[in-house]
Amino acid sequence: MSNLPVVLALSVVTSASAQTLVSPEVHADGGVTFRLRAPNAKEVLLRCEGTKAGPMQKGKDGVWSVTTEPMKPDIYAYSFQVDGLRMIDPANPLLKYNLLNTDSQVHVPGPATLPWEINNVPHGVVHRHLYHSAIVGDDCPFLVYTPPAYDPAAKESYPVLYLLHGYSDAEDAWVSVGRANIILDNLIAQGRAKPMLIVMPLGYGNKEVIANGWAGLRKTGVWQDSIEKFRAALLQEVIPQVEKVYRVSADRNDRAIAGLSMGGTQSLFIGLNAPDRFAWIGAFSSGGLDANFEKAYPAINESINARLHLLWIACGQQDGLIGLNQKLVDWLKSKGIKLTWVPTSGTHSFTVWRRYLAELAPLLFQDKR
Amino acid sequence: MSNLPVVLALSVVTSASAQTLVSPEVHADGGVTFRLRAPNAKEVLLRCEGTKAGPMQKGKDGVWSVTTEPMKPDIYAYSFQVDGLRMIDPANPLLKYNLLNTDSQVHVPGPATLPWEINNVPHGVVHRHLYHSAIVGDDCPFLVYTPPAYDPAAKESYPVLYLLHGYSDAEDAWVSVGRANIILDNLIAQGRAKPMLIVMPLGYGNKEVIANGWAGLRKTGVWQDSIEKFRAALLQEVIPQVEKVYRVSADRNDRAIAGLSMGGTQSLFIGLNAPDRFAWIGAFSSGGLDANFEKAYPAINESINARLHLLWIACGQQDGLIGLNQKLVDWLKSKGIKLTWVPTSGTHSFTVWRRYLAELAPLLFQDKR
Repeated sequence: MSNLPVVLALSVVTSASAQTLVSPEVHADGGVTFRLRAPNAKEVLLRCEGTKAGPMQKGKDGVWSVTTEPMKPDIYAYSFQVDGLRMIDPANPLLKYNLLNTDSQVHVPGPATLPWEINNVPHGVVHRHLYHSAIVGDDCPFLVYTPPAYDPAAKESYPVLYLLHGYSDAEDAWVSVGRANIILDNLIAQGRAKPMLIVMPLGYGNKEVIANGWAGLRKTGVWQDSIEKFRAALLQEVIPQVEKVYRVSADRNDRAIAGLSMGGTQSLFIGLNAPDRFAWIGAFSSGGLDANFEKAYPAINESINARLHLLWIACGQQDGLIGLNQKLVDWLKSKGIKLTWVPTSGTHSFTVWRRYLAELAPLLFQDKR
Repeated sequence: MSNLPVVLALSVVTSASAQTLVSPEVHADGGVTFRLRAPNAKEVLLRCEGTKAGPMQKGKDGVWSVTTEPMKPDIYAYSFQVDGLRMIDPANPLLKYNLLNTDSQVHVPGPATLPWEINNVPHGVVHRHLYHSAIVGDDCPFLVYTPPAYDPAAKESYPVLYLLHGYSDAEDAWVSVGRANIILDNLIAQGRAKPMLIVMPLGYGNKEVIANGWAGLRKTGVWQDSIEKFRAALLQEVIPQVEKVYRVSADRNDRAIAGLSMGGTQSLFIGLNAPDRFAWIGAFSSGGLDANFEKAYPAINESINARLHLLWIACGQQDGLIGLNQKLVDWLKSKGIKLTWVPTSGTHSFTVWRRYLAELAPLLFQDKR
């Protein structure tokens, strides 16, 4: 069939942006060349996870570039710093979207066994819900991942992982950056994780906290109000909606809660204080921990061991939060609480959190009851 | 409940980015102040739809700013140009995501009657599917909007609008920028549109076309291959999946196809050449039209009038494509084809396309059969 419309007449084609620039270019050895056209800039730096390559060199065509040493297969966040101004790579559509600092990402592909690689396996579906929250007083989104085998008319009901993002993330972070859906697709295809739903709500109970940028973290009252209202919205609004719309179990043994950074703290705070709701808890690189743990978890004692099938706490050794997480673990142990403590290498980064999810998911909803 | 974790210890808090800058700031009169911290820049320009405000002024604190005249309620795309370098507004999380030119957006809110305003009405759900396309030879996403009343177990089956994006858009453009889901939520709540599903596939049948940036439009062979394979993937892969998974009618009277720019051309090309599949066609600001219409639509004649319930063609008078669209309309009329021609004010922009969708959707699937 050759009778096609072929002549495109968009005026934009003639603009300066028509000049194609390839960035990032991933080489066969894992080295990456980054490029930016900025003929008027005086200094352009690359800031990229996993490499120390910094200053970029200007070519005669006004294009700045730098090539890194070979990098291990992974997905790295990066940005350019142009005369002190941070910016995304305009040539690269792969963004690390974030409410406060959107970066670019480069994917150095690796073997199919890496949990985040998209393989030709059955894929689940990610559903985006929007509802008006009476508790938050605003329109709130939440995402739901249903596994490939999911059948709304099935007799069996599925377990659910509530998976929480970090401060400054949006509700899509665990999908668009964390690749939670791809990780579960792979684990399920390999028979390593039980088919489960993953629910990813927006984690701000008071949107003023994030409207204040990073300063929101220091507004103690707002921060406190935010986490409290988030818990209320999750328990009273999100979970009931999920359990109404989807074929999921409402048994505590079939509910897990986990998260990263702020979401790790939320998971501990919500989960440890509500063992009637959650039997599985994961906390990744938790931030926002009050060092006065007695205050945060007033009722905790050994009796929770019989109810919690898993309390999984992980943090990177190069993460500034490792000390606080270690303190929490020590305190929990001093209270006789059983837990799995997973200190790993790594920083405060999705390169760590993707691996944590891939480690945690196979442990969930296995028969420990 | 006051036993909360309140002290956040993220190292990022102490970075320079902790300084909160508000941009854009929408004033009560609709004027907008844009701000960018760029102490080392020599010239910063604002490029924003709907205003001629250009040069920004530098303050003593290194923050550049400009305030526009009052702007009509709408959602406008904008970017900054810093010493010639185009960039998004780093202080603003509302992006206009695009594969070739991601911009920022500013929402000047208006009355609830504007079709894209989020109102406290029942909201539909947007589902993201991913499958491996044998035709495209790649992993391909498509989005599905289900209306608020959607019930997978209902006896009735729903009609479907296949809604196509423009060149350089990703599959999410009609949702994240076009607000198609919000527009339909509102129209359905008002009883003005029939509850329908909207399916939004990624529109590149050959991904080489978009990998070449804007230059891809001029690679005739690749462009032709892309539109041909896109049609095949839509008809042979996407539609069967949708009709398997969702409670939708497979009757041609219940299938519409519409799109913007490249998607308008695809809708005409696919729809007019397959009246056995689609009874409703919409083409917004179509780009990529071959002026040799005889070649693109070889079999078209008056007999299609009895089968097509609607052929709705619209374009903005300030759009560079108005001439070509007018020519197409004249040619179709010369062939005796019945159509609705809707020349409006406006440019090649989502400010136009949101309105077109809000006008078209109420016309679809009404009893004309």
